[in-house]
Amino acid sequence: MNALPPDLNHELARVLGDGWLTDPSERLAYAYDNSRRQSLPDAVALPTTREQVAALVQACRARRVPVIARGRGTNTTGATVPVAGGVVVSFERMNRILDIRPGDRCAVVEPGVLNGDLQAALKAHGLFWAPDPTSAGYSTVGGNLACNAGGPRAVKYGASRDNVLALTAVTGAGELIHCGTATTKGATGYDLQRLLVGSEGTLALIVEASLRLTPLPQARGALRAIYRDVSSAAQAVAQLMAQPLTPSMLEFMDSDAVRLARDIGGADLPQEAGALLMIEADGDADTLPHSIETLMAAATVDGLVSLDDAADEAARERLWAARKALSPSLRTLAPGKINEDVVVPVSRIPDLVDGVQHLSREFSLPIVCFGHAGNGNLHVNLLYDPADTAQSARASVAMSRVFALTLSLGGTLSGEHGIGLAKREFMPQAIDPPTLAMMRAVKSAFDPDGILNPGKLLP
Amino acid sequence: MNALPPDLNHELARVLGDGWLTDPSERLAYAYDNSRRQSLPDAVALPTTREQVAALVQACRARRVPVIARGRGTNTTGATVPVAGGVVVSFERMNRILDIRPGDRCAVVEPGVLNGDLQAALKAHGLFWAPDPTSAGYSTVGGNLACNAGGPRAVKYGASRDNVLALTAVTGAGELIHCGTATTKGATGYDLQRLLVGSEGTLALIVEASLRLTPLPQARGALRAIYRDVSSAAQAVAQLMAQPLTPSMLEFMDSDAVRLARDIGGADLPQEAGALLMIEADGDADTLPHSIETLMAAATVDGLVSLDDAADEAARERLWAARKALSPSLRTLAPGKINEDVVVPVSRIPDLVDGVQHLSREFSLPIVCFGHAGNGNLHVNLLYDPADTAQSARASVAMSRVFALTLSLGGTLSGEHGIGLAKREFMPQAIDPPTLAMMRAVKSAFDPDGILNPGKLLP
Repeated sequence: MNALPPDLNHELARVLGDGWLTDPSERLAYAYDNSRRQSLPDAVALPTTREQVAALVQACRARRVPVIARGRGTNTTGATVPVAGGVVVSFERMNRILDIRPGDRCAVVEPGVLNGDLQAALKAHGLFWAPDPTSAGYSTVGGNLACNAGGPRAVKYGASRDNVLALTAVTGAGELIHCGTATTKGATGYDLQRLLVGSEGTLALIVEASLRLTPLPQARGALRAIYRDVSSAAQAVAQLMAQPLTPSMLEFMDSDAVRLARDIGGADLPQEAGALLMIEADGDADTLPHSIETLMAAATVDGLVSLDDAADEAARERLWAARKALSPSLRTLAPGKINEDVVVPVSRIPDLVDGVQHLSREFSLPIVCFGHAGNGNLHVNLLYDPADTAQSARASVAMSRVFALTLSLGGTLSGEHGIGLAKREFMPQAIDPPTLAMMRAVKSAFDPDGILNPGKLLP
Repeated sequence: MNALPPDLNHELARVLGDGWLTDPSERLAYAYDNSRRQSLPDAVALPTTREQVAALVQACRARRVPVIARGRGTNTTGATVPVAGGVVVSFERMNRILDIRPGDRCAVVEPGVLNGDLQAALKAHGLFWAPDPTSAGYSTVGGNLACNAGGPRAVKYGASRDNVLALTAVTGAGELIHCGTATTKGATGYDLQRLLVGSEGTLALIVEASLRLTPLPQARGALRAIYRDVSSAAQAVAQLMAQPLTPSMLEFMDSDAVRLARDIGGADLPQEAGALLMIEADGDADTLPHSIETLMAAATVDGLVSLDDAADEAARERLWAARKALSPSLRTLAPGKINEDVVVPVSRIPDLVDGVQHLSREFSLPIVCFGHAGNGNLHVNLLYDPADTAQSARASVAMSRVFALTLSLGGTLSGEHGIGLAKREFMPQAIDPPTLAMMRAVKSAFDPDGILNPGKLLP
């Protein structure tokens, strides 16, 4: 049936009942994720309780069988592909919202609940959970936490790590640990819960999360600012981030992105547009107009071509049309795309975009930059034809140069996608040997036999 | 000269020059902290560089000599008292502000810089660092990070852990590690920097910190709300925290605190005052009046006795007079005070205060509660006469009952003071055995020979 020891199959079939899948056709759906890499697991577990998870990890540890936690596989780095075989643990049956406590700004959930389902439930209480990755409608809270997912709202409200209070998890030794307290402050021992966030299932499997919630703002408003060039837009970003009214979104598009949105996507943008910012504010309905005025003033720098204020939700949608036209337009340039989410200090955005444009010319490959400017977190999209081996090889070298550039600017490999398989080989460039050794020692403390998601994150 | 091996003395005198103190009179100043516990170190090191710190730790590790990091000793838990002797490393000579980058909302500092000195330097750039412990004028950033210090502003801006981007530190193996990146987002490997925050010098010695800064608000306003009883005030706290406009401070005083401030401190408070909230908002000068109105509406619940708005800074000072009159008044009740900073979910504040008042009657000891209501972080002040052995024994039992009560309400031992020596014995009540074992394993990964601040935090 599969390559696992028969006694393990027997034991886990007993523990998990119909939540133990060994049929190859059933396993296939758990072989890949949004990275488009693929590797068939030996079995798939669909636990319904934390006790099942603990029993599974203990049984697998006894036989040194890999255990790979999985939400819905929306990650782009291969973090949930079972490259060493073993058991994929999909949390699709642990998807309950256990408690919502508005007065405490806290929700307690199982890891498999979809981000979007949680947001819908919270809305009735006038609350939201800050992380808003593009995948929110079909990615899980557990997956968001495992990758430290962010999204455009992170500039004001933080990413996953900033919005977790406590986690219950099963370590690689099969021990159930309780990290943190469901309070907004805490100084009782080591902060293990934020360590688990972003660890991509390599330290422990999250079985319950107490999340920090934020009250929903009453109203929001949007601005679209068009600049002559990237350095003008970057100057505006710095000015926007240096004043107290933090935008609720601050999204950037470089000149290639603007051109694509206009020429291919049909967005209504002027010819002289060399960069674009989408700026949002949220807050009290009465004071929002004043907030928008404040942001308009901060966005006004030399090189501003136009500044449009969306008077209502329909106008807001029209302003966002340019941004939304972009992703489909990218596909017209080349069939293949490498999308990396590097991050640099905000002041270094112009250097990053300039450097990337230089690399685009050097390697004769289109590279389009857009993303979360308020955090310095740009999505660098390198376009190429995977069928063309010479182009593929150039693309790979160009991307490693993008990473080297990012690191030279005081930035790092990933802002919100994580490392997984995709960026693992670049870790020694980003993290020095003693710090990597320390990460390995932490890994060993949580997972003494290295059974949790082997081959990911650490080189 | 001291109990250290002569070769170690010789080696470290060479490394540290005049920053190596062995004279007992010089060492005495480093024997105690604000916990009033005392234990003489064998030597004191005043390093000026990270290389000196690494060399010191390596030399001490080779001889299994304890190393205790120290800011200015303002902590209340005994976290810097060298109970096992060894070398106290005081960072008073590593006190430079290395860089302030307003566009990146980032400052890079050495650990020994005073919080207050940093705030003064940041003010010129229109920025601040959020942690504002009472000790800010004379406590260090390194110490604030080691304890995860907070303060009243944390309700809106977070505590130390929420306001750090990257740390450079020396582990217990004497290795220099670089944790995190000076960007506001990051998903590159394990989050070691937030793990170091609050670890009280037991995992590594912080030698450089990149701090997350916040733009200074233009204006602030204050409200004083007086309630008939604690449950009315708690109802107002819940209502204030459930709406989007987060107060910049939300401080609470229970009935005993109110009575003391009025009868002893001379504050102008009505007889029927059973609880008090100090509420502040900050933001744009134009919209602040509207924010204050919003908070006034949220603070208005059944049981409200009076609600005063400070029209200007002088009026604000008058409103705060009741809170400021409190601390000196406490001393009139008894010569001894145990001040613990427990934290509970906001919705459980009434249960905590009720329970504490019950314990006060049961043990015939005054217990006064006040503190950071928006985070559920109350300072429970137990008053007794240390010269009266029966009272001292009762005080100790009563405080352990306060901890048990806090834990039963889903809270934890400390919100911002930490564990140190003072609360170490209570850790097994707060943290279950597998999680404590995990914390010990993490400790061993960072400090294989257990030389960093032995006897603290972990039981």
